[in-house]
Amino acid sequence: MPANNNERPRVVIVGCGFGGLEAARALRKADVDITLVDRTNHHLFQPLLYQVATAGLSAPAIAAPVRFLFRKQANVTTLLGEVTAIDPVQRGVLVKDGAALPYDHLIVAAGATHSYFGRDDWAAYAPGLKTLDDAFEVRRRILLAFEEAEKEVDPAKRAAWLTFVVIGGGPTGVEMAGTLAEIACETLPGEFRHIDPSGAKILLLEGGPRVLQAMPESLSESAKKQLEALGVDVRLAARVTAIDAGGLQVEPAAGEPYRIDSKCIVWAAGVAASPLGKQLAEATGAQSDRAGRIVVEPDLSLPGHPEISVIGDLASAKSYAPGKEPRPVPGVSPGAKQMGRTAAANILRRLRGEATRPFRYRDYGNLATIGRNSAVVDLTLPAGNLRFSGLFAWLFWLFAHIYFLIGFRNRIVVLIDWASAYWSSQRYARVVSNIEHRNAGVAPQPTREA
Amino acid sequence: MPANNNERPRVVIVGCGFGGLEAARALRKADVDITLVDRTNHHLFQPLLYQVATAGLSAPAIAAPVRFLFRKQANVTTLLGEVTAIDPVQRGVLVKDGAALPYDHLIVAAGATHSYFGRDDWAAYAPGLKTLDDAFEVRRRILLAFEEAEKEVDPAKRAAWLTFVVIGGGPTGVEMAGTLAEIACETLPGEFRHIDPSGAKILLLEGGPRVLQAMPESLSESAKKQLEALGVDVRLAARVTAIDAGGLQVEPAAGEPYRIDSKCIVWAAGVAASPLGKQLAEATGAQSDRAGRIVVEPDLSLPGHPEISVIGDLASAKSYAPGKEPRPVPGVSPGAKQMGRTAAANILRRLRGEATRPFRYRDYGNLATIGRNSAVVDLTLPAGNLRFSGLFAWLFWLFAHIYFLIGFRNRIVVLIDWASAYWSSQRYARVVSNIEHRNAGVAPQPTREA
Repeated sequence: MPANNNERPRVVIVGCGFGGLEAARALRKADVDITLVDRTNHHLFQPLLYQVATAGLSAPAIAAPVRFLFRKQANVTTLLGEVTAIDPVQRGVLVKDGAALPYDHLIVAAGATHSYFGRDDWAAYAPGLKTLDDAFEVRRRILLAFEEAEKEVDPAKRAAWLTFVVIGGGPTGVEMAGTLAEIACETLPGEFRHIDPSGAKILLLEGGPRVLQAMPESLSESAKKQLEALGVDVRLAARVTAIDAGGLQVEPAAGEPYRIDSKCIVWAAGVAASPLGKQLAEATGAQSDRAGRIVVEPDLSLPGHPEISVIGDLASAKSYAPGKEPRPVPGVSPGAKQMGRTAAANILRRLRGEATRPFRYRDYGNLATIGRNSAVVDLTLPAGNLRFSGLFAWLFWLFAHIYFLIGFRNRIVVLIDWASAYWSSQRYARVVSNIEHRNAGVAPQPTREA
Repeated sequence: MPANNNERPRVVIVGCGFGGLEAARALRKADVDITLVDRTNHHLFQPLLYQVATAGLSAPAIAAPVRFLFRKQANVTTLLGEVTAIDPVQRGVLVKDGAALPYDHLIVAAGATHSYFGRDDWAAYAPGLKTLDDAFEVRRRILLAFEEAEKEVDPAKRAAWLTFVVIGGGPTGVEMAGTLAEIACETLPGEFRHIDPSGAKILLLEGGPRVLQAMPESLSESAKKQLEALGVDVRLAARVTAIDAGGLQVEPAAGEPYRIDSKCIVWAAGVAASPLGKQLAEATGAQSDRAGRIVVEPDLSLPGHPEISVIGDLASAKSYAPGKEPRPVPGVSPGAKQMGRTAAANILRRLRGEATRPFRYRDYGNLATIGRNSAVVDLTLPAGNLRFSGLFAWLFWLFAHIYFLIGFRNRIVVLIDWASAYWSSQRYARVVSNIEHRNAGVAPQPTREA
């Protein structure tokens, strides 16, 4: 698409997660004007967000100012703002309280938010983990639950304060449950006078038949065993049917429904595409899937709108490898990054008058950590898959995450925090800045799409 | 005061700032039961709070969990709770939503909060700097002001976003103004496309005739010059008469009143004793001074209530050095710490049936930083005073502060953050977790007394 009137082509990128960031970087030498708009001022390294929620890391350690990341890339203008709608006819991005941003090429990488499967009222009782504010809220609830238990004299109420339930056995749920067990058994003992934190109950509820369903079955089994060794009560095929301020109702696949009294519930179950996806699908006539993700063309553009690409968690995309059937792309950060690079490359191709290319996802594997010394790794190598778990997997996970903290000048700080936490079992960021809003019944957190 | 019925004497300490923390530590070998109650879960290293507000440090770097600090001191029970009143007749401390804590000896170290000199409505437009939440709010306003300026097309409105006013020329105001100048001139340039951050105006307004009035006049003059070298517009004898969402009204000692349009105003002017002081004074008949501080006996106890000591910013105390006139104790952290030790020692003396001793403040001097490489130091040495300023003073300030981060396992992390910030002019913690509530007109922050 040629630029209008002597100007350079205008590329607007919505969202500065892994996909948007990578797309902007891939255009660093392009003769275009990029506007990168996000509703926060930072790029969040989401794979470590659970560490902020469990007081292992401070927020700035995993959040890099977007402006700083692009200070030397002169063709990028960073804009803090919430995108409310996209106008594919006028080719403009509407920003709340601001002017519309005109574009010649648009990359929408607005990401995902929690989904409570239509039960948005559960958000007040079981916060999810997508933004820094979410992480602060979860941290506050975890730390204050132990404080309340220390003060409580009624044994039943005390037990409810000391029962922690994580809903959802994906990577985030597994990491949360494992880390909660560590906090209870290794970090806090000795600090309380009326309770024994190591007596806390940590439950991980998963509706499906196994945890980490994206991983091979043998690693799911290994993860479950490692969690149980840490003291986590893993319940599979356990569907949550109700959540309230005092606990939740569980319907197991076999047996009677039962209730768990708990004052600290973390939601790691459902993910839905950003609400922007719905508006964009309606405006362009694109299809969206059950989770609200937009079904994209092989080159990641929208049908009839080659100037719009959708990437990352907002896209329902397929990978096109030569000689193979197209396969769905998993919702992981390498997928988002690779889509960002492909979308950027396709913009450059169109500017040169060339045909775009289909997206091809390169799967390097999958990894999840469970706790100190515990992790599972499933690497996809040319010679075949390499699967391992335990201490070596954990070390692999650790260095992979520190390596990918690219653009964060805090890799050393994160390393020190972890090294120190490792040797002392202490957790550095046990700070609650505001003890209000700690109980269930607070207003749901605003959702963030970018 | 003997203990009741075979039990060990119960000591309750209200507040875990410098004074309360030191008192509890000084009783570590005493055969007493200590309850330490605070409304936050952390001890805050307040001298570095301005670094959190200006994105130089993360919150956990200057906030240590109280529970962790006392995990090995078996005679301390830590309690998270807000003290609402003290009952000197029944000898109980009333905690919100909880049972009264009975005491045989009480140390009240509830500290101070902002004072807007009766204009509490100003709090919404000019947040102060006492708690972590305050620091987050100031950080949010500073960072978002530059973001809004980048988006603003109207030159007058843009100028208001780029005008930062610090009210109050004490140590906090001087540190804030100096650091703001650094952010504008060294951290942010190059990151914006429509504004030049180094064109931002930083004003420091002081009602009195000089900044740092607790320091010798020569150092006040030096501090002013160093601030001006950084680009800060220092206005002395400038009284603020009104603050609103768009700026403030100034009445200079000489000349006409004038208005400054500013969207980011920081309050570093007034300090008032915790509201608990008023209740305690009324309940015990003790006198309080104009700032609400309670006038204590030479041994820091209350008249007629030898079992109650008041220390730190809540106390209007005098120092009794042999052969000298009693002198007021300044409201600085070494004063609070020393009072904590004296109050603890006097409890031990009373338990042994000995007479208590008057408080003696040992003044080791005073120091304030202004910016990178800039500080003023006034040391009180046996051989006389040693005063210096500039780079060497700054290095002295740096190491003194890192040294006193006692109990914080983050001294190394703080050092790395600072070293990195020093060499790169970057600031690590430029994170705004929530872009809401950024404008004037939000509800005032809740004040924290402990």
